[in-house]
Amino acid sequence: MVNPNSNDAVTRGIDAALEPLRFAEGPEIACMTLAEGPFGVETQEDVESVTLPLARLVRERNDAAAFIIACYSDPGIHVCREATDRPVFGIAECGVLTALSRGERFGVLAIKDRSIPRHIRYLRQMGLMDRLAGERALGLSVAETASGTSTLDRMTEVGTELRDKDGANAIVMGCAGMAAHRKALEERLGVPVIDPTQAAVSMAIGTVALA
Amino acid sequence: MVNPNSNDAVTRGIDAALEPLRFAEGPEIACMTLAEGPFGVETQEDVESVTLPLARLVRERNDAAAFIIACYSDPGIHVCREATDRPVFGIAECGVLTALSRGERFGVLAIKDRSIPRHIRYLRQMGLMDRLAGERALGLSVAETASGTSTLDRMTEVGTELRDKDGANAIVMGCAGMAAHRKALEERLGVPVIDPTQAAVSMAIGTVALA
Amino acid sequence: MVNPNSNDAVTRGIDAALEPLRFAEGPEIACMTLAEGPFGVETQEDVESVTLPLARLVRERNDAAAFIIACYSDPGIHVCREATDRPVFGIAECGVLTALSRGERFGVLAIKDRSIPRHIRYLRQMGLMDRLAGERALGLSVAETASGTSTLDRMTEVGTELRDKDGANAIVMGCAGMAAHRKALEERLGVPVIDPTQAAVSMAIGTVALA
Amino acid sequence: MVNPNSNDAVTRGIDAALEPLRFAEGPEIACMTLAEGPFGVETQEDVESVTLPLARLVRERNDAAAFIIACYSDPGIHVCREATDRPVFGIAECGVLTALSRGERFGVLAIKDRSIPRHIRYLRQMGLMDRLAGERALGLSVAETASGTSTLDRMTEVGTELRDKDGANAIVMGCAGMAAHRKALEERLGVPVIDPTQAAVSMAIGTVALA
Amino acid sequence: MVNPNSNDAVTRGIDAALEPLRFAEGPEIACMTLAEGPFGVETQEDVESVTLPLARLVRERNDAAAFIIACYSDPGIHVCREATDRPVFGIAECGVLTALSRGERFGVLAIKDRSIPRHIRYLRQMGLMDRLAGERALGLSVAETASGTSTLDRMTEVGTELRDKDGANAIVMGCAGMAAHRKALEERLGVPVIDPTQAAVSMAIGTVALA
Amino acid sequence: MVNPNSNDAVTRGIDAALEPLRFAEGPEIACMTLAEGPFGVETQEDVESVTLPLARLVRERNDAAAFIIACYSDPGIHVCREATDRPVFGIAECGVLTALSRGERFGVLAIKDRSIPRHIRYLRQMGLMDRLAGERALGLSVAETASGTSTLDRMTEVGTELRDKDGANAIVMGCAGMAAHRKALEERLGVPVIDPTQAAVSMAIGTVALA
Repeated sequence: MVNPNSNDAVTRGIDAALEPLRFAEGPEIACMTLAEGPFGVETQEDVESVTLPLARLVRERNDAAAFIIACYSDPGIHVCREATDRPVFGIAECGVLTALSRGERFGVLAIKDRSIPRHIRYLRQMGLMDRLAGERALGLSVAETASGTSTLDRMTEVGTELRDKDGANAIVMGCAGMAAHRKALEERLGVPVIDPTQAAVSMAIGTVALA
Repeated sequence: MVNPNSNDAVTRGIDAALEPLRFAEGPEIACMTLAEGPFGVETQEDVESVTLPLARLVRERNDAAAFIIACYSDPGIHVCREATDRPVFGIAECGVLTALSRGERFGVLAIKDRSIPRHIRYLRQMGLMDRLAGERALGLSVAETASGTSTLDRMTEVGTELRDKDGANAIVMGCAGMAAHRKALEERLGVPVIDPTQAAVSMAIGTVALA
Repeated sequence: MVNPNSNDAVTRGIDAALEPLRFAEGPEIACMTLAEGPFGVETQEDVESVTLPLARLVRERNDAAAFIIACYSDPGIHVCREATDRPVFGIAECGVLTALSRGERFGVLAIKDRSIPRHIRYLRQMGLMDRLAGERALGLSVAETASGTSTLDRMTEVGTELRDKDGANAIVMGCAGMAAHRKALEERLGVPVIDPTQAAVSMAIGTVALA
Repeated sequence: MVNPNSNDAVTRGIDAALEPLRFAEGPEIACMTLAEGPFGVETQEDVESVTLPLARLVRERNDAAAFIIACYSDPGIHVCREATDRPVFGIAECGVLTALSRGERFGVLAIKDRSIPRHIRYLRQMGLMDRLAGERALGLSVAETASGTSTLDRMTEVGTELRDKDGANAIVMGCAGMAAHRKALEERLGVPVIDPTQAAVSMAIGTVALA
Repeated sequence: MVNPNSNDAVTRGIDAALEPLRFAEGPEIACMTLAEGPFGVETQEDVESVTLPLARLVRERNDAAAFIIACYSDPGIHVCREATDRPVFGIAECGVLTALSRGERFGVLAIKDRSIPRHIRYLRQMGLMDRLAGERALGLSVAETASGTSTLDRMTEVGTELRDKDGANAIVMGCAGMAAHRKALEERLGVPVIDPTQAAVSMAIGTVALA
Repeated sequence: MVNPNSNDAVTRGIDAALEPLRFAEGPEIACMTLAEGPFGVETQEDVESVTLPLARLVRERNDAAAFIIACYSDPGIHVCREATDRPVFGIAECGVLTALSRGERFGVLAIKDRSIPRHIRYLRQMGLMDRLAGERALGLSVAETASGTSTLDRMTEVGTELRDKDGANAIVMGCAGMAAHRKALEERLGVPVIDPTQAAVSMAIGTVALA
C-alpha cells in the first residue's frame, strides 16, 4: 500500500485503518509513503508527478505480492500495471466496485469541488457511470478532513444530501484519509460507507492469498 | 456461504476452494447446502425455486455477519437484502466486480449456452456491460465441470477464445463449481482468472472485519 | 391476464379497465386472481412469492394463447417464458414500451418510494433507461390508489412534477390498479398517460390475432 | 395507415396483412397510399420527399383517431406529431418496441445494405441500441421482397444468421412489405418474427379504443 | 455556408461572424440564404421544409468544395450527404464536437424551450449524450436573440445556470444567429463559448485545404 | 504543436503535413520536438514520461495562443489544461471528433496491437464509444509506418477490414506519423481518412482566429 503523497500522517492514518484486516497468517499489509510525492495530491499536476515514481517503486519491490495505490485518483495505475506482472489495485476503482456490491446506486464524498470532474472522467473511463447517484464535495482541505473535529458533521451533512437528494444507497469516501470517520458516518447515515483503502486491501487479500 | 443447490459435493468443493481465505483470527467462513435447493441450478425455474428458501435462511441465521449466495445467477439476492440488515453478496456480482479490478475487459466462461442470455440480462441489470468482452459456454454439465478430467482442457480452449477473439484481459468463471481449475487455467491463459466464490469471500472479509 | 396478488377487487378493476379492448370476434380477455398470491405485491418477497405459482399456472393453462402478468414488477416473467412456448407479456415492460411510442421521454408514477429502486433496476435490465425522465411516488397504499377519492388529485400533482420538473412527455402508471384514473389524468396533464394493463393487452391482441 | 410510397400493390399487401386485426366493433383500419410518394422509399431523399405531404395529410384527415406511417424509416414522424394532437405511430418504432416485448435481443432483416446505417442511426435516436443483436440485409429490391418466390428462402437464410451468429431471439422485418412471409418465417426460425405494420396497428388499437 | 431560413439579416450576421476565418489564400467562405426557406426555422415543419431545397442546392453547386448547413437542427444533413461526394457539415454537430474538445461537459443555450426535445433527440442520434451537462432556453425569439440589447444579459444568466447548476465547462450557442455575443459571453462566463457556425467553418477549412 | 517524442523526423513529418493549413495572415503553426521525450511513445511509461515536461512547456511558452499535443494517446492533456488558460488540444480527441463529423461510424488504424486497449480506455473516458466501428493494428513500428514503402499497402489492407468487416464510414489514423499516406489511403478506401494532427490544427485555427 503506497501513499503517493509524502504526508506521513496520512500514511499512518491509512495504516491504522487497515489494522482490522491484518490477520494472523494472513497477507502482511505494509504501508509506505512515496518519498517523491507532493505533500497532498490535489491537482492534476500532483497526479502526474507520482506516476513514474510509483512505477519505479513497483518495479523495485520484488517482495510485494500485490500493490495498492492509495490515492483516490488512482495515479499511475496503468503504468504500474505495465511495470509488473503482479496485481496492482487502485483505491478509487476498488472503492467504487465495492460500493456496487453493497447498494443499488452509489454516491461519492469528495474533498474539494475541483476534484469532481477528474473523478467523473475516471468513472467514465472505468465504464461505471450507470449506477452513480452523484458526487458532492465537503469543501475541506485534506488536512482538515483527516483531523478537523467538525469533519464528521460536515461528512454527515453532505452524505445526507447524497442519500436523500441524489438517491445514493452506498457512499464511497473519495479520499485515502477519511477512514477514521467511516464507521461513525455509516451509523449516522444508515447506508454502507466504503473506505476505499479498506476496500482495496480486502480485494487484494483474496488475490494474494490465492496466488 | 450458501450453495443454493442441494449437491453436497459442490458445497464441499466450494469449501475447499475457500481454504486459503481462512485466516487465524479472521472471519469464520461456513459453507452450507440449501436443503430445499434443486440438485443443480440450471434453469430459470431452478433460480426461482431457491429465492424464498434463501430469504428464510438469511432471516433465521442471526449468527452470520454476512451472507454469500454461491450460485452464478445470484438467485434471491434482492429478497435476501430485503430480509436482513447485514450484507448479502452474490458471487456473480462479486466475480465480475473483481474482474473489473484486474483487467481492461472481462470474459465469462459459462457452463451452458442457455445460461448466457440470463447472465447478460443480469449484467445489464447491474449496469456492467461496458467492459464485457464476451461470454462463451463450455458445453458441459455442472457435474462434468466439477469432476471431468478433460474439463481443464475445454476451459483452456474456450478461455483462449475469450482472450484472443473477444479481447478479454480477465476471465470470470461463471459457476460456483469451477474453483479447482482456477489456478491452472490462469497459468495456461496468462490472464487473471477469477473464481467468483473466492472473489465474494474476499470482498466479504473486508466488510465483516470492519463492521 | 393474471393478477399475481390475491386481491379480487384489483382483478375486477383490471377487468373493467380492459372492457374497451374486448372486441366482438377479437381475442377473449380473461382476468384471474392468483390464489397463492399475497394480498398486495409491495416487497421483493411478495415478488418472489408469486414466481413459481405463476409458472405453474402458465404450464397448466393450455387454453390461453398468451399470458399477461398484471403486476408492475413483472414478477416471474422469465420463468414463465421458460415454462411455455406461448408469448408472456409483463405489464411493466409493455407499459414502458408503449410510452416510448408516444413521447420523447417517459415518467413513471409509482405508488411508494421503496418500489422505485426495484423499478429502476428493472428498467436497467431491459436496457430502457435512455429515455426515462424520472420516477416519482404517490406515497399512497395500493388500496388507497384504487379507491381513494383524492387519489386523482395526488396523481395530478405528482404527474405534473414528472412533466414539468423531469421533462416527461408521457406518463406510465406504475401499478396495475390505477386504470380507473387514466383518462382523467391524461386530460388534466395534457400528455399521454399509459395504463400498463391496457398497454399489455393491446400488444397481446396483435400477437394472438396473428398467431 | 399511410403507405408513403405510391406503390398501390404495397398498400394492398399491408391491407391484407392487417385483416386479422380488424375486429367487429373494433377500430376501423384504413390503408391509403400517399399520392405524392415515390414508388419506393429507398434513399434518404425518398424519406425527405414524403415528410411534408404526410404532415399535410395528417392535418387534413380529421376523421382518423390515430395515424400510422407505414415505412420502416418512420419518415416524417416528428413533423406529423407536431401537426396533430392525435397519436402518430411509426412502424419501425412499433416493430422494435414489440420485438423488445418478445425476445432478449432483436435482429432486423433489412432489404438493402445501404438502409442499415439509416436504421442504426434511428435506433440510436430512439435510445434502443442496448438490445440490438444485429441487422442484416437480404440484398433484394422492395419489389422482389414482396413478390419473389425465393424471398422466403433468402429471409430464412439471413434470419438464421441473425439468430445464430448475432444471437437474436426475435426478428423485426425491416420493411412494410414483408408481412406475407411473417408466419412462415416464424415457423422456420422458431423465434418470434414481428411485422412492423401489424405491430403498429396492434399498439394503435389500444390507444384508439381507450381514447 | 447555407442559411436555411430566408432571413437575409441572419445570413449577414453569420457572414460577419466568419470574417476572422477568412485567410488570404485560405478557402473562400461564401454565405448564402436559402430562398425557399421559412423566415425562421423554429418548428419541425420548418426543419422538414428545407431538406429537399438544401439537397437540390448541394447538387447544383459544383463549385463548392464543402457545404455547411447553418441551422442548429442540422436540417437535411443526411440527404445532403447522400446528394454529394463532397463533405457536408452541420453546425449543431460541429458545435457540439468542438465543445467536446474544450470542456469536460457541455451545456447548450437554446432559444426556445420547445427546441430542446428536438436537440436532445439529435444528440442521442449522434451518440453524444454522455457529456451533456444540460440544455436551457433563453425564452427569446430568433429576432430578439440577434438584435435585442438585453440578449447578452439573458445569455449570461442562462449560461451561468448551465455552468453552475448543470456543471457545464463549455457552452454551445444553440442557434446560428448568436455569434455576435460569443466573445462577450465567454468573457463573462469564464468558460469556452462555441458559436456553431464558426466551429463548422473551422472544421471545414481543414477538410477543404487538405482535399 | 508539440511532438512529445524526441524523434525529429516525426516532427518534420508533422510539420510537412500541416503545410496546407498555413494561410497567409492565418495563425502561425509551429512544430517542436519535446526534448525530454522518449524516441517513440509506445508504452504507458512513455506516455507518463512526457506529461510533466509537456505541462512545463505549456507554462513557459507564453507566445502560443493554443497548444496541440501531437501523440495519439493525448499524453498530459489534462495537466496541460490545468497549466494554462489557453486551449490545449489533443490529436486523438480531435481526430475522433473530426471523424464523427464525417461518417456514421469510425474505425481506428493503430500501429500496434498493444495500443488498442489504451485507446479504447481513452475513448471510454471521452464518452465517444457509441459510434466506434472498431480499431485494428497495422503491426508495424512507428518508424516503419512513417517510412516503409509497403506501409500504404498494409494500411489499405487493414483499412479495408475496418470499412468492410467493422462497418467504418470514416477512418482515423491512430498515430501522429501517418499523415503522408492520408490522401492516398482516402482515395483507395473511398471513405474519409482523418489525420489527427491535421484535424487538431484545423480545430485550433478556429479557436485561435476567434480569440
